[in-house]
Amino acid sequence: MAADLSTYKQQDAAAADRFRQVFRCHPAGVVVLTLDAGRGPVGFTATSLTSLSLDPPLLSFSISKTSSSWPQLRDADIIVVNFLGANQEAVARRFATSGIDRFADPTRWHRLPDGDPVLDDVSGWLRGRVENMISVGDQRIVIGRLEDSWFSSEASSLVYHDGCYRSL
Amino acid sequence: MAADLSTYKQQDAAAADRFRQVFRCHPAGVVVLTLDAGRGPVGFTATSLTSLSLDPPLLSFSISKTSSSWPQLRDADIIVVNFLGANQEAVARRFATSGIDRFADPTRWHRLPDGDPVLDDVSGWLRGRVENMISVGDQRIVIGRLEDSWFSSEASSLVYHDGCYRSL
Repeated sequence: MAADLSTYKQQDAAAADRFRQVFRCHPAGVVVLTLDAGRGPVGFTATSLTSLSLDPPLLSFSISKTSSSWPQLRDADIIVVNFLGANQEAVARRFATSGIDRFADPTRWHRLPDGDPVLDDVSGWLRGRVENMISVGDQRIVIGRLEDSWFSSEASSLVYHDGCYRSL
Repeated sequence: MAADLSTYKQQDAAAADRFRQVFRCHPAGVVVLTLDAGRGPVGFTATSLTSLSLDPPLLSFSISKTSSSWPQLRDADIIVVNFLGANQEAVARRFATSGIDRFADPTRWHRLPDGDPVLDDVSGWLRGRVENMISVGDQRIVIGRLEDSWFSSEASSLVYHDGCYRSL
């Protein structure tokens, strides 16, 4: 089931600037979303992940339909959320860089038992089933449900804030 | 327009626990959402705020329909996002406490020219028009569009991580 709220029009550049500026006040955790919809591993950095509901265990994140990852995410049943540690700024930057093979060296990754790609050395990962995609303007809000997860009790976290990556 | 994806059933307590644990890896900025739908000021702490789209300037956050603020948020046209500074942990806790008048002393707040309540001494605020509410299980994803904003260029930010409030 997909809701379609894709009727938003662009507003103006000044409003976009004001919006960007005030959101510099707002820190966010950094994750890489990975998936394989049958055409090889795909991944992208995101700061929009949020836990939507505990019971049922639902997460959400957003992606632009102009993202190079969107055509494959659209076909994915499973996504993996890779929670990045404080020392993984280079990973965050790599999975936000266009025109490269993000899974090539020096990226280290492996596959989970069901074949889903996951990055090495993350603070935790969560394997989720894609349950809904909601169109809002040129964005898609993706809703996933927990299938499996793992976390390191000693892990640190990477934060994006005021245009920079930081640690806690 | 409201999409209705409210068909989710509860899963199990163990899955909720695993979900909670892995999300301890995920830091989040802390805001207080304030509004007045004609029955006095209402506000609640949230860590689910995300910037959904720059152009148009859209934000989203989620709220449980069991929240005491939901009946008034449901009727609101305008919400104010109050971005909390690193020294405002007490404000975050107060606006997450049930059974008190959150706007009573020691809370300091005022009204914007259109009457919308805003907290004093925040790092920034954003006044947004509620454009959509999407039902997902017992949650509502609220989508707002920027109307006005203000931010302090010298502000710090409060972060929620691993069950604690922290500063950056």
